[in-house]
Amino acid sequence: LVCKLLEIVQVQASQQLDNNHYSLMKQTGFISETELWLSTNAKNKRVAVDPTLISVARATQLQKIISESGGELVMLEDNLVDSVKQKLNDVAKLPTSNAFALDILYTGESIEAKIKLIQNTLSKFGADYMALNVLDEIAWLLNIRGADIDFNPLVISYVIIGNDATLLFVDVNKISSELVELLKLSNVEIHCYSEFYTKLNSLYGTICLDDKTANYAMLMNAKQNATTMFIRSPIVAAKACKNIIEADGARHAHIKDGVAVISFLSWLDSNWKSGVTEISSAEKLEEFRSKQKNLKGASFASISGFASNGAIIHYHATPQTSKIIDDSNMYLIDSGGQYLEGTTDITRTVHLGTPTAEQKKHYTLVLKGHLQLARARFPKGTCGEHLDVLARAPLWNNYFNYRHGTGHGVGSFLCVHEGPQRISQAPSAIPLLPGMIVSNEPGLYISGEYGIRIENLCIIKQDSNKHAIDSEYGPFYCFENLTLVPYAKKLINIDLLSNEDIEQIKIYYKEIIEKVRPNLSISDQAWLDNEINFI
Amino acid sequence: LVCKLLEIVQVQASQQLDNNHYSLMKQTGFISETELWLSTNAKNKRVAVDPTLISVARATQLQKIISESGGELVMLEDNLVDSVKQKLNDVAKLPTSNAFALDILYTGESIEAKIKLIQNTLSKFGADYMALNVLDEIAWLLNIRGADIDFNPLVISYVIIGNDATLLFVDVNKISSELVELLKLSNVEIHCYSEFYTKLNSLYGTICLDDKTANYAMLMNAKQNATTMFIRSPIVAAKACKNIIEADGARHAHIKDGVAVISFLSWLDSNWKSGVTEISSAEKLEEFRSKQKNLKGASFASISGFASNGAIIHYHATPQTSKIIDDSNMYLIDSGGQYLEGTTDITRTVHLGTPTAEQKKHYTLVLKGHLQLARARFPKGTCGEHLDVLARAPLWNNYFNYRHGTGHGVGSFLCVHEGPQRISQAPSAIPLLPGMIVSNEPGLYISGEYGIRIENLCIIKQDSNKHAIDSEYGPFYCFENLTLVPYAKKLINIDLLSNEDIEQIKIYYKEIIEKVRPNLSISDQAWLDNEINFI
Repeated sequence: LVCKLLEIVQVQASQQLDNNHYSLMKQTGFISETELWLSTNAKNKRVAVDPTLISVARATQLQKIISESGGELVMLEDNLVDSVKQKLNDVAKLPTSNAFALDILYTGESIEAKIKLIQNTLSKFGADYMALNVLDEIAWLLNIRGADIDFNPLVISYVIIGNDATLLFVDVNKISSELVELLKLSNVEIHCYSEFYTKLNSLYGTICLDDKTANYAMLMNAKQNATTMFIRSPIVAAKACKNIIEADGARHAHIKDGVAVISFLSWLDSNWKSGVTEISSAEKLEEFRSKQKNLKGASFASISGFASNGAIIHYHATPQTSKIIDDSNMYLIDSGGQYLEGTTDITRTVHLGTPTAEQKKHYTLVLKGHLQLARARFPKGTCGEHLDVLARAPLWNNYFNYRHGTGHGVGSFLCVHEGPQRISQAPSAIPLLPGMIVSNEPGLYISGEYGIRIENLCIIKQDSNKHAIDSEYGPFYCFENLTLVPYAKKLINIDLLSNEDIEQIKIYYKEIIEKVRPNLSISDQAWLDNEINFI
Repeated sequence: LVCKLLEIVQVQASQQLDNNHYSLMKQTGFISETELWLSTNAKNKRVAVDPTLISVARATQLQKIISESGGELVMLEDNLVDSVKQKLNDVAKLPTSNAFALDILYTGESIEAKIKLIQNTLSKFGADYMALNVLDEIAWLLNIRGADIDFNPLVISYVIIGNDATLLFVDVNKISSELVELLKLSNVEIHCYSEFYTKLNSLYGTICLDDKTANYAMLMNAKQNATTMFIRSPIVAAKACKNIIEADGARHAHIKDGVAVISFLSWLDSNWKSGVTEISSAEKLEEFRSKQKNLKGASFASISGFASNGAIIHYHATPQTSKIIDDSNMYLIDSGGQYLEGTTDITRTVHLGTPTAEQKKHYTLVLKGHLQLARARFPKGTCGEHLDVLARAPLWNNYFNYRHGTGHGVGSFLCVHEGPQRISQAPSAIPLLPGMIVSNEPGLYISGEYGIRIENLCIIKQDSNKHAIDSEYGPFYCFENLTLVPYAKKLINIDLLSNEDIEQIKIYYKEIIEKVRPNLSISDQAWLDNEINFI
């Protein structure tokens, strides 16, 4: 699943906003039109924001710009939109899904150990508390999951970690008495969700906040009686590097996901003639996935695009747009599952009839980039921006490109888009480290005709060669494929592959046979055998 | 010629400084030990700097750090070291080489047009003057060259550009009456070098400075009666992209340089038995270069390293270290010339006997990276940091790397290291654009044994394919090799080359035969024919 580019959000916004009431401010690159507009229009003006909806970093930047131009940034006590909605009786309730504990069999690390990590950071900085508002950081820290947000197994909550106890602010109805007891064992106390700011307000000493993610209301309350200190949340780096159990879980989840996706592709090959649409196809894939053990739902809304719909990078099929899938063109499906063992995300592009030579060329160029990135070996310190070109070079060489990143981080039964690492041209300055999961998903989109994307998830690991460790330039790392589903045989022009490409595919297919094939039905095994027998 | 890494300068400094009198402060990455030390030691202290020796940007940073820690940054009126030297009668005189005009046949653009570029920038910002102190910017602007600094054809001077006139502050003895007249035609007035600051001090209106390069004394003086404004010097980008005449000049210079280097390599092959040392070898190459028309000297001090000396990245042969070159090991020579038509910089590594299989493997891996970068095709917006991996991947794949950048910018009969573009992992955020000249110089250094580096200069150009322009992802650019000297036949393990590598070498050698071979002696032609006949 590629990250939604700002550009696309802006196109959508410009189409949907009523120009009579709204004026769209775009952010291009690093310059935001909002900031630019404020710098010339905020003179003698008071600009109001809801401090619970703006990060400390952004608020500080706005304050600087507005005060320099002679205006003032004002923090609202009540959200004006909410007040109007209240009058209209149009208030959305917070979701009420139950939270549940994720066993250490899946997380690989105890709550105590994770809390200790934060407490060690507090000691290091001589601080007393850290307050958290990022939901996947809280879920990771306390080994809890929930279903408050579509596709993301999160629990709406706040946390304050002190040297003695950890306070979880949450709708108490979501937490069973068993979970209360369990958390108590790790010295985690449950508090009412609404008491968070009051509690923060009452603390003395030094409170750490991550100014990139903490909202400004947290800063305002923390400052009441305590000193505040800005640090990068230590959870970001810890969560990104999966431990051995999480890594094994990811491998396990991907074997199950491979069974589901291969069964689906085999089914589609035999059943498209009966009338399959973009929507029913995606539903069928969900059905195959739901048969797998420990599936807790999809990791995002599938992108299921036939022909020209496949060329729309963030396409979402609706009854109005959903095409019938047949043998006349290419079909792209990008989907993923949330398993207790890990999060999956895979894109495959297929053709149910006879592709043209040009379609095969386009697919093979995307595949070559995907393979070249997958086989990269790189020294410690290398960032995603340094490797991105490996996936693009075969396309660039043919004057093609794709307008999205090459890879995003992925959580462990958490968000399908997770930082801080990524693979794209944008400067991240985040070295790729063992245990990080990233996607490898180059694409090519021929507007009005079809889209191609090939996506595997992979995990970064220490290269196993002895020179990878003893080299004076090392340690050297490499990618291990997690996704285990063959590429589209019909769409590969083998003449465009190098010997290295072919060897790599052979090794990959051997792994699929070993790990996934035994779990397939006899007929799906036959489909798989046919799909991989050309190489 | 690879950029000297800070690390290497620091090793040298730590070896040479007397610890009794000096304490070495290192800069690692983006954190300077000096700044760190000052932040904890400047309390209630007055820290003095010579404002003519510190950039505005650096001084501003120091001021912030020192004042935050309760100290004060003080600008000296006289340089204390100079005062002591004066008492000891140990004052170095400024160089007195004559300046000369570089004809528009070489520069391709008139002084008026270049001055107009700055004046347009002044209009854009509503400013009245721009003051310049960067010598290659001044040389480029006024189409003058000199010999005040070893290897760099520069004239020590300052410039103030106004809307009506341009003032050049320079030792007037360096400027012939003809040059005075010539500059006068472009409304450039000659002033005494020592009058620069006084003049700056006397100006009213708005003065532009590039705070990254202008020294703090310029700011102090400019602020006396005028308002100052910081802008990036428009010369930086203009100078980096060579015009058609400069690009053709570079091609011409490299043909001559190819003749010199090939003649030298042929000579070395036949004459090493008579006793050639690292020093005499480099001198011989200079001799071959000096026979070429319009050579104005070397573009840097040659790096001539046999065997283990070749593994020292910034080696400089001295009578004490200079080894005799024989057939027992590898020999690396990195050198360049300053021609009126352009600046050259080339590294070749050879073996005069029979290389081992490992030496051939190492050389071929470096060559593969060099070739892969050279054939890159990339869309507008791509920066050096995005392409760097192409040169490193074959080495990384074998657990090797090199501790220097892959490429640096090069001037047009100016500095052999010129910004702002470069090819390295460090984030430059400078897109590679047509007309920019960069080196392509991967290497591999086996400490105590030998060093390998293969360096060509190349110029970025619009790719000539029609899709390079009409692609929705374009325009697409590519590299054109300027350097025209074959690689070392003996050191190539052809089995490690891909078909693409081999085709690329064939095309390159065809170009060498067409452009350089006709200018070689009969015996050197025979040497060349033998060197390239294996492929």
